[in-house]
Amino acid sequence: MEEKMAVKKVTLFTEKPLELILGGQLSSIEVAYQTYGKLNAEKTNAILICHALTGDAEPYFIASEQSGWWQNFMGTGLALDTSRYFFICSNVLGGCKGTTGPASINPNTSRVYGSQFPNVIIQDMIKVQKALLDYLQIPHLYAVIGGSFGGMQATQWAIDYPDFVNRVVNLCSSLQFSAEAIGFNHVMRQAIISDPNFHGGDYYDKTPPLQGLAIARMLGMLTYRTDKQLTKAFGRAIKTDNHFLGDYFQVESYLSYQGRKFLERFDANSYLHLLRALDLYDPAINYANIDTALSRIKARYTLVAVTSDQLFKLADLHKSKQLLIENGVDLHYHEFHSDYGHDAFLVDYDFFEPRIRAGLEED
Amino acid sequence: MEEKMAVKKVTLFTEKPLELILGGQLSSIEVAYQTYGKLNAEKTNAILICHALTGDAEPYFIASEQSGWWQNFMGTGLALDTSRYFFICSNVLGGCKGTTGPASINPNTSRVYGSQFPNVIIQDMIKVQKALLDYLQIPHLYAVIGGSFGGMQATQWAIDYPDFVNRVVNLCSSLQFSAEAIGFNHVMRQAIISDPNFHGGDYYDKTPPLQGLAIARMLGMLTYRTDKQLTKAFGRAIKTDNHFLGDYFQVESYLSYQGRKFLERFDANSYLHLLRALDLYDPAINYANIDTALSRIKARYTLVAVTSDQLFKLADLHKSKQLLIENGVDLHYHEFHSDYGHDAFLVDYDFFEPRIRAGLEED
Repeated sequence: MEEKMAVKKVTLFTEKPLELILGGQLSSIEVAYQTYGKLNAEKTNAILICHALTGDAEPYFIASEQSGWWQNFMGTGLALDTSRYFFICSNVLGGCKGTTGPASINPNTSRVYGSQFPNVIIQDMIKVQKALLDYLQIPHLYAVIGGSFGGMQATQWAIDYPDFVNRVVNLCSSLQFSAEAIGFNHVMRQAIISDPNFHGGDYYDKTPPLQGLAIARMLGMLTYRTDKQLTKAFGRAIKTDNHFLGDYFQVESYLSYQGRKFLERFDANSYLHLLRALDLYDPAINYANIDTALSRIKARYTLVAVTSDQLFKLADLHKSKQLLIENGVDLHYHEFHSDYGHDAFLVDYDFFEPRIRAGLEED
Repeated sequence: MEEKMAVKKVTLFTEKPLELILGGQLSSIEVAYQTYGKLNAEKTNAILICHALTGDAEPYFIASEQSGWWQNFMGTGLALDTSRYFFICSNVLGGCKGTTGPASINPNTSRVYGSQFPNVIIQDMIKVQKALLDYLQIPHLYAVIGGSFGGMQATQWAIDYPDFVNRVVNLCSSLQFSAEAIGFNHVMRQAIISDPNFHGGDYYDKTPPLQGLAIARMLGMLTYRTDKQLTKAFGRAIKTDNHFLGDYFQVESYLSYQGRKFLERFDANSYLHLLRALDLYDPAINYANIDTALSRIKARYTLVAVTSDQLFKLADLHKSKQLLIENGVDLHYHEFHSDYGHDAFLVDYDFFEPRIRAGLEED
């Protein structure tokens, strides 16, 4: 009865609530997910894909006009080979793409969560993903792969469930978010919270804080790209129909467009919560310290850094590399330059293809 | 009768208005300025200091509790030696530190300019500075020095008045603002313009757009510093009294404080206009092309780059260096690393001291 390629949904934690790391609990968590390819008889070819901050459960669309966020990376014979592996991708807890988040109805009150949505972190998201895999009767992951926020999730999988995961492929993310990156997230959050339409997070029966969210997205875009790419794409070209303090240069018009486009697909409260989960990511939560946490990892761990990444800076990637090595992780590290900066993991298939392939296939 | 060290003021363009490059005119322009040291009998020791975006006419305070923005760089025996040179510094046209800007009263209407303030660019600011020097009967500048936005002004001085200027010292700025940097300015402008208290720029009888201006300032601060400096200063330390979506990490509290502090000293409309003047800076305005403009420079030109500068990136400084050399400018180029990034020119005296001294004294 399943509609082909429509996002699948399941309600988990119906009998026992999920106890959240920072306190509170969530019950009857709806999870949106998608699967690709076929699970083999031995159930040894399952790969979990973890999406980045504003991603969703559908990295790929087969025979559809739609384009997923990893559309060019997946398919028969591609780096994420749907003819060989069984891929599972789910929307994260706290998101707004089908999985329970601030815009969902609280089953206990029958009202939208809004400001009452509890604080969730990556470790909570992993637990929901694990519950989904249990529901799907997947006893083991051949690999977990993700970029940015998704790379943090992939790392935590190998820490929290070391015997469950053979391989981790972490693209463009470090083991902790930097002070500067927290600062950018702070500015984005303040833009949303300061929007008079935010109403403390309870805006679902009103106009949402669209201007704040658009400003946040524009800033995010700047940290995901590089000056080199923006210079190549727009340089200092001026719009024909320009406004002196508004969209005057083409690069401004591009950013404004990206800001507006984002409003159609994202909820401000989800954005606030996921940004904070990014800030708060710390592999050591629940363990004595970072070394104790990282030394649990048994998976073959591939880490790919982009030297021009402005969000996860190279110095942080180097620090992560060092920590992983010091804690005995079987690390396979690659770095390269891309004009796309942080966004390279969504765009630069030619570079990532052999690295992902090696991460999934080489010994 | 002049009060010691209070900012001086003069009204210029009282007989003939200033015709602005982008159209329109301004008359009876009030100019706030300060001078330091003594002009020698031959009038050969005058140095014009051009301030950066949010600076003012007082880089230095003598025998005062106050601290100017170049307090540590100026004084007897220091890089900017007040016992040898006669320094002049004025607040830029469009600013809010005593020189005519959007918050000033339009003498033609007796009402505050607000949204009616015309669009001003660096070339206009230079003309006001030149009128001030004429008023002060200074026939020649030994040097013009400035960092960032002030460096752009210094450059334009040597182009527009090649026989008037012996030396240029340009710290941490390139010949043009990059696409990415325009993008950051765009986000800052949108934060201000989207603030419901902005009222299209006519907010002087109401509450000003303080939240938008604070957000803009916080973002500015991030581009002026580096992750390394923020990591050293704050790392991932959490505030004792924290708010989950507000000031949670110490770096957030620092940024929020910087945002609030800025509100006491800056006007949103001035900020918008000066940001745009930064974006629009182009040495070639009024000349056939950039080569024609740069080849007019007769001054000994010192350019100092900070390799970690996130606002004026090294690639742009290198491009500027190349253009200056190609056009026969007597260029003296230095580059170095500072954890302070762009803000180094306001902070890192130990590095800048010998470079500024060389720029002012060496042949």
